[in-house]
Amino acid sequence: MPNSQTLYLGLDIGGTKSAAIIGTPEGQVLARREWPSGSSRGPEPMLADLIAAARELLREFPAKAAGVSIGGPLDAARGIVLSPPHLPGWDAFPLRERLEEALQLPVAVEHDAAACALAEAAWGTFAGTSRLIYLTCGTGFGAGILLDGKAYRGAGGHSVELGHGRFAEEGPELFGKRGSIEGYCAGAGIPLLAAAKYPQRWGAKPPTVAELAALARQGDTEAASILEWNARSVGQVAANLADLLFPEVILLGSMARHLGAGWVGTVRAKFLEEAHPHARNCKIEPASLGERLQDLSALVVALP
Amino acid sequence: MPNSQTLYLGLDIGGTKSAAIIGTPEGQVLARREWPSGSSRGPEPMLADLIAAARELLREFPAKAAGVSIGGPLDAARGIVLSPPHLPGWDAFPLRERLEEALQLPVAVEHDAAACALAEAAWGTFAGTSRLIYLTCGTGFGAGILLDGKAYRGAGGHSVELGHGRFAEEGPELFGKRGSIEGYCAGAGIPLLAAAKYPQRWGAKPPTVAELAALARQGDTEAASILEWNARSVGQVAANLADLLFPEVILLGSMARHLGAGWVGTVRAKFLEEAHPHARNCKIEPASLGERLQDLSALVVALP
Repeated sequence: MPNSQTLYLGLDIGGTKSAAIIGTPEGQVLARREWPSGSSRGPEPMLADLIAAARELLREFPAKAAGVSIGGPLDAARGIVLSPPHLPGWDAFPLRERLEEALQLPVAVEHDAAACALAEAAWGTFAGTSRLIYLTCGTGFGAGILLDGKAYRGAGGHSVELGHGRFAEEGPELFGKRGSIEGYCAGAGIPLLAAAKYPQRWGAKPPTVAELAALARQGDTEAASILEWNARSVGQVAANLADLLFPEVILLGSMARHLGAGWVGTVRAKFLEEAHPHARNCKIEPASLGERLQDLSALVVALP
Repeated sequence: MPNSQTLYLGLDIGGTKSAAIIGTPEGQVLARREWPSGSSRGPEPMLADLIAAARELLREFPAKAAGVSIGGPLDAARGIVLSPPHLPGWDAFPLRERLEEALQLPVAVEHDAAACALAEAAWGTFAGTSRLIYLTCGTGFGAGILLDGKAYRGAGGHSVELGHGRFAEEGPELFGKRGSIEGYCAGAGIPLLAAAKYPQRWGAKPPTVAELAALARQGDTEAASILEWNARSVGQVAANLADLLFPEVILLGSMARHLGAGWVGTVRAKFLEEAHPHARNCKIEPASLGERLQDLSALVVALP
C-alpha cells in the first residue's frame, strides 16, 4: 500500500451519477466507486451514499484530505451548496462541514467547472497555464476560470455562473431566463433550438443531441444546422470571454468529446470571426483529459 | 516643499486633452498642467508635450515615480500602446521605456479604465473593495477589473477590451463591429441608436448626448427612450459581468455624472431584472471621485 501521506480522496457529485476515488498528487487513480446519484431523493440520502463509499475506500486507502466537485451555484470558499437546479433540496447545504464531521478529514469543495479547469491545469496538455477557462459544454453550460493558476471565486466565495448571462433578447429558456447563454450553448438547449428553428419537424417532439448527431452524420442538413448553431453560440461566448479576460486557452468539455473535431472547428471559426484581433492568440481546444477529467477534477480539489 | 519621497507624477493621456499632475500617496494633488492632446499629430509630438509638462512639474516637485493612464488596447505590463482607435499612430509604441529614458524615473502604465478602478479602490467610497469593476461609460465603453485589489491584465499583459464583445446580432458599429457592446453602451453609440430608432427624425443628423439630454428634460419621450435604451444596455452588460465575476461593486463613469440619478437608476433597474439572484447584492453606483477621478487615476498608477 502506498504511503498514506500521498493519497487523496475525490468525491464527484453529479445530477445523474456520483463517484468516489482515491488518487495521488500525480493524478494516478488507485481505486474508484461509482453509483447512481438518485438526486430526486434530496441531499441527506445522497450524502449518506457518499459517506459510505468514502469510508469504504478510506479503510483500504487512508487519505490525507478530500476534495469535492459539485455543480453551482455554491459558496465554494465555505463549501455551502446553494440550490443548484439539478440537485433539488440542496438549499444552503453545508456540504464541507458535514463531510469533515463524518470523515474526520480536511475537505475542500469546488464548482465542477472550476475543478475541471484545475485538473486540466495540473495534468492536461495545457498544464501550467496561468489564465485558463474551461467551458463545461455538457447538459448545462458553465465556466471554470483559472487566474494565476487559481480557481476564481466571486464575492462571498461564489462560483462563476456564466450560463445565466444573456445571449440574446429571445431564445430557449434555461437557467430561468429566455435567451440565456445556457439556452444557446448547453446540451439541454439543443433540442429547444431544434424545436424553435424547425417547429413543423421538431416542435412536438424535440430531438436529442445524439439523434441530431446521427442525422447530421447521414447528411441531414437541418440536423447539422442545429449543432452548428450551438457551436457558433459557444464560439461567440468564448470570444466575449477572450475580449474580457484574454486567457491563454479556452477548453471545451463534454460536447467536444461527443461531437468531435467538426463541432470544435465550428466553435473555433466563430471565435476567430468575433474575438478582438489581439485576443485571437487564445487557443480554443477540447479538454485533454477525456474520460479521466471527471475523476481528476474531484481529486485535484483535495490537493494542497 | 514636501519631502520628495512622498510625491508622485501622474500623466493622463486622452484623445482630447492630456494632463500632468503631482500628488501624494493620500491622493492630494499639489500641482497640475493640462493641455489639448492634439492626438491627430501622432505619438512623437504628444510625447514631447508630455515630457515638457512633466519636467516642468518635476523641477519644482521631485517625484519618486510616474504613472500613466491611457486608453487601450495596450500591453499594460510592459507599457506598450497597441493602436488605440482614438490615438492614431500609437502602434506598438513603447511608452513606458520612452518616458523612463526621458524622465529618469520608474514609470508604470495602466489602461485608463483599470486606473480609474484603482483610484476608486484607493480613495473612493468603496475603498478597499476586493472585486471592483469600473465601467468608463464615456465616449467609449471600457472596463477596469480589480480582483484581489489588483488591476486584472490578460495574457501578454493585455488590457481588458469589454467594449469589443458582442451585445446583439445587429446594431451600431463601434470598435469595428456591428452590434458590439461599445455600440450599445458607449456615449458615441447614443447618436447611432437615435438614428436607428427614429430614422425620420434623426437619421440624417444624429443628435448629441447633450442634445438628447436637454430634449428629455423638456419631456421629449423619444429622446428619453434613447437614453433609456443606452442605460438598459449598460445594465444588461453589468448583469452579465456580475453573473460571471460576482464583484462587490460595479461603478459607472462619465455618463453617470453627466446624466445623473435617473440614468443610473435605469442601469440599476435593468441590472436587477437580469442578474442571477445571488449576484444582485453587487452594488451599481456612480463613481465617487467625480471631477477628481481622471487626475487620481493617473496618480494611483505611480504608487508602489
